[in-house]
Amino acid sequence: MLKSFSDTIDGPLRCLKQGKLLLAISGGLDSVVLAWLCHELKLNFALAHCNFNLRDEESNTDEDFVINLAEDLDVEVFIQNFDTLSYAQSNGRSIQMAARELRYDWLKELAGQLEFDYILTAHHADDNLETFLINFTRGTGLNGLTGIPTINDNIVRPLLSFPRAQIQEYARDHNIDWREDSSNATRKYLRNKFRHDIVPILKEINPNLLDSFQNTLEHLKDTADIVEESLNAVAKRAIVNIDDHGVTYKISEFKKVNNPKAYLFEMFKNFGFTEWNDVVDLLDAESGKYVKSNSHRLIKHRAHLILTDLQTYTNEPIIINESDASIETPLGILKLETAKSYLQADLHTIYVDKHRLKFPLMLRPWQEGDIFQPLGMTGKKKVSKYLKDEKTSLVEKENTWVLTSDNEIIWIVGKRADERFKITSKTKDILKITLKG
Amino acid sequence: MLKSFSDTIDGPLRCLKQGKLLLAISGGLDSVVLAWLCHELKLNFALAHCNFNLRDEESNTDEDFVINLAEDLDVEVFIQNFDTLSYAQSNGRSIQMAARELRYDWLKELAGQLEFDYILTAHHADDNLETFLINFTRGTGLNGLTGIPTINDNIVRPLLSFPRAQIQEYARDHNIDWREDSSNATRKYLRNKFRHDIVPILKEINPNLLDSFQNTLEHLKDTADIVEESLNAVAKRAIVNIDDHGVTYKISEFKKVNNPKAYLFEMFKNFGFTEWNDVVDLLDAESGKYVKSNSHRLIKHRAHLILTDLQTYTNEPIIINESDASIETPLGILKLETAKSYLQADLHTIYVDKHRLKFPLMLRPWQEGDIFQPLGMTGKKKVSKYLKDEKTSLVEKENTWVLTSDNEIIWIVGKRADERFKITSKTKDILKITLKG
Repeated sequence: MLKSFSDTIDGPLRCLKQGKLLLAISGGLDSVVLAWLCHELKLNFALAHCNFNLRDEESNTDEDFVINLAEDLDVEVFIQNFDTLSYAQSNGRSIQMAARELRYDWLKELAGQLEFDYILTAHHADDNLETFLINFTRGTGLNGLTGIPTINDNIVRPLLSFPRAQIQEYARDHNIDWREDSSNATRKYLRNKFRHDIVPILKEINPNLLDSFQNTLEHLKDTADIVEESLNAVAKRAIVNIDDHGVTYKISEFKKVNNPKAYLFEMFKNFGFTEWNDVVDLLDAESGKYVKSNSHRLIKHRAHLILTDLQTYTNEPIIINESDASIETPLGILKLETAKSYLQADLHTIYVDKHRLKFPLMLRPWQEGDIFQPLGMTGKKKVSKYLKDEKTSLVEKENTWVLTSDNEIIWIVGKRADERFKITSKTKDILKITLKG
Repeated sequence: MLKSFSDTIDGPLRCLKQGKLLLAISGGLDSVVLAWLCHELKLNFALAHCNFNLRDEESNTDEDFVINLAEDLDVEVFIQNFDTLSYAQSNGRSIQMAARELRYDWLKELAGQLEFDYILTAHHADDNLETFLINFTRGTGLNGLTGIPTINDNIVRPLLSFPRAQIQEYARDHNIDWREDSSNATRKYLRNKFRHDIVPILKEINPNLLDSFQNTLEHLKDTADIVEESLNAVAKRAIVNIDDHGVTYKISEFKKVNNPKAYLFEMFKNFGFTEWNDVVDLLDAESGKYVKSNSHRLIKHRAHLILTDLQTYTNEPIIINESDASIETPLGILKLETAKSYLQADLHTIYVDKHRLKFPLMLRPWQEGDIFQPLGMTGKKKVSKYLKDEKTSLVEKENTWVLTSDNEIIWIVGKRADERFKITSKTKDILKITLKG
């Protein structure tokens, strides 16, 4: 038995003993040894092999090898062929990235359909070290230095703490055959440069490199736990609202901590921002200033920061005919129904005098110059003035729509109805208009 | 001017503009360029050169070079010769470690005596990268990955964000001479292996390696700030007492966090512990269990953990003669004085009937079998039973001493006096005994 592998399966990874397992197998050393270990431990597993068709005949021989192995092990095998090259080209991916995406997508789909509990991959300690060094060389933060996770979602990596050398030794001791991937030898791939050029020197400097590395990872993961807990605590205090417009954070909470930039970075790093000094400057900027990433915007609004995504809203007006009972809009489903009586209106519901309306109605973003007569008032007011008086944030302003009849505003949707369309003693037919977000 | 170096001196390091600076100079590229930069910026500086006498004639030529440079720059120069080899041998240090210690000790002493505000060293971005990789290769935690500090105490490293290549370019552009240290070329020193074998490959993989590295360091330092703040908060809640016995932590505070091990590690890592799982197990261990390092012990005492240092206490009994007015003991200064009246006793003071005493007295650690008559009680009691009833921790027990007269206990020092020596209506002479910790 691979030294202490059974301890892993009896200990931290005992979940694997009960589950139905799908083992991702290339035919290479690591995954073949993992298959034999699963066999030795009588785990309930099947093999899944991707043929990426990248190495012509070699790829097909790998496929045959895996089929024969499944027979030897007496387990089920699933094979999938991919046109990796054209996937990479049409999706703008590197070959390695494309293969990775195709592989995980297929494995997850297969596991879902056939009710496998866990997907097993054969990543080992050397893979993990290489990943650390690759991330470091590119530039990263703590999370890029905590390595490949042993378990994430339903993907489990039982060999992650074992050095490649031990896996090789096991194969030799047990006369296990595997397929050598010719691309492993080239220096063409980034990972291979680390494997062949860097790691051997590091191991020469510290023969216990992999043990030291495991300790380092343990410490860094623990540290990451502290950071996560601390961020959650700050987020819990800072977040005052989450709605369709985005997430609203109290700025004062970021000012209470010793290093606001550290917390801002950790809290917003997954939203594509890069200009962290600008983000920090937002804390003291005037209301309305913002920082944009490719996907998100962080905007200062009075005592708050609001995070929104930049999904481009359809700003196209929507035409609403008299026959429409329910119509999909960028704001949600708008429902029009005749009502017998006039119940309490709320932010999402208004009641109007149907005979005052001129169909088709129009739903559109508000515009500069829009004027309405707020319900309960005798005078008219500019919509811009109304939004300003209501201290509406820039984000919210941009998402404010109006429902109009013959270009008269019936409703600033979700905010205020218009006086001119209200129910009076003379109203014959009541129309109830509801927006469901 | 070295690209943007003046920005550093005008910005983050503007403290250097006012201060009196002592520049540590080897005669090598980095420190010589730093000296010329200080000259160009008209900073107020002197040179300090260590001759470690490790490279015979070469060492002396370096010294001469620095003396001439000081003349060219028209600044003061301090030279110190060391017998590095014998220091290393007699202190069990590597040559590199010995040179480092000698250098910093001397620089600090010199700066202190001659009132220099800052000591400058010429570490640069490549040094920092090498340190990161060395620490990583040895195995480390987050703090080993945050690099050399730009400022710690009064040591400032103004070149830390500049690549060696830029410094070299500056020297070339300004026709600056420097001394090449022949030991830089050998692969004998660990650092040189990284410099010559590893870093060039990493730079080939990522030509912007040093920029990425600076970003990584920024992020990791920010993360370290979050961790520190979080630890301080937990420590503030957990620490209930600090005294001569050690520091007492409330266990319940470690149980409130998601990953107690992470906090225990960060909080106690500087005390030499290595068995972190044992430390975690203490949280649920019986009272009295402990984990030892070379220098410290962490002991479970009821709802608390107590950290103490293992300094070997003198357990030798101390003899106290009648003529001793004040005597130094491992517990502090013990004072004996005649008192006119009997004032309030406290934990550190007792009043006894002088004529009941048989000199010399003895101060010694309590022993199994010791018996005394607690003040106010008619019966005798074992000291061990008394300490148990008082719920005394193991640490405190070990530090409990008794003051005896003819082997009768007068005082369990700092805890309880004995009934037999108390002041009565028949007392003629009162002796006040005080312990000052």
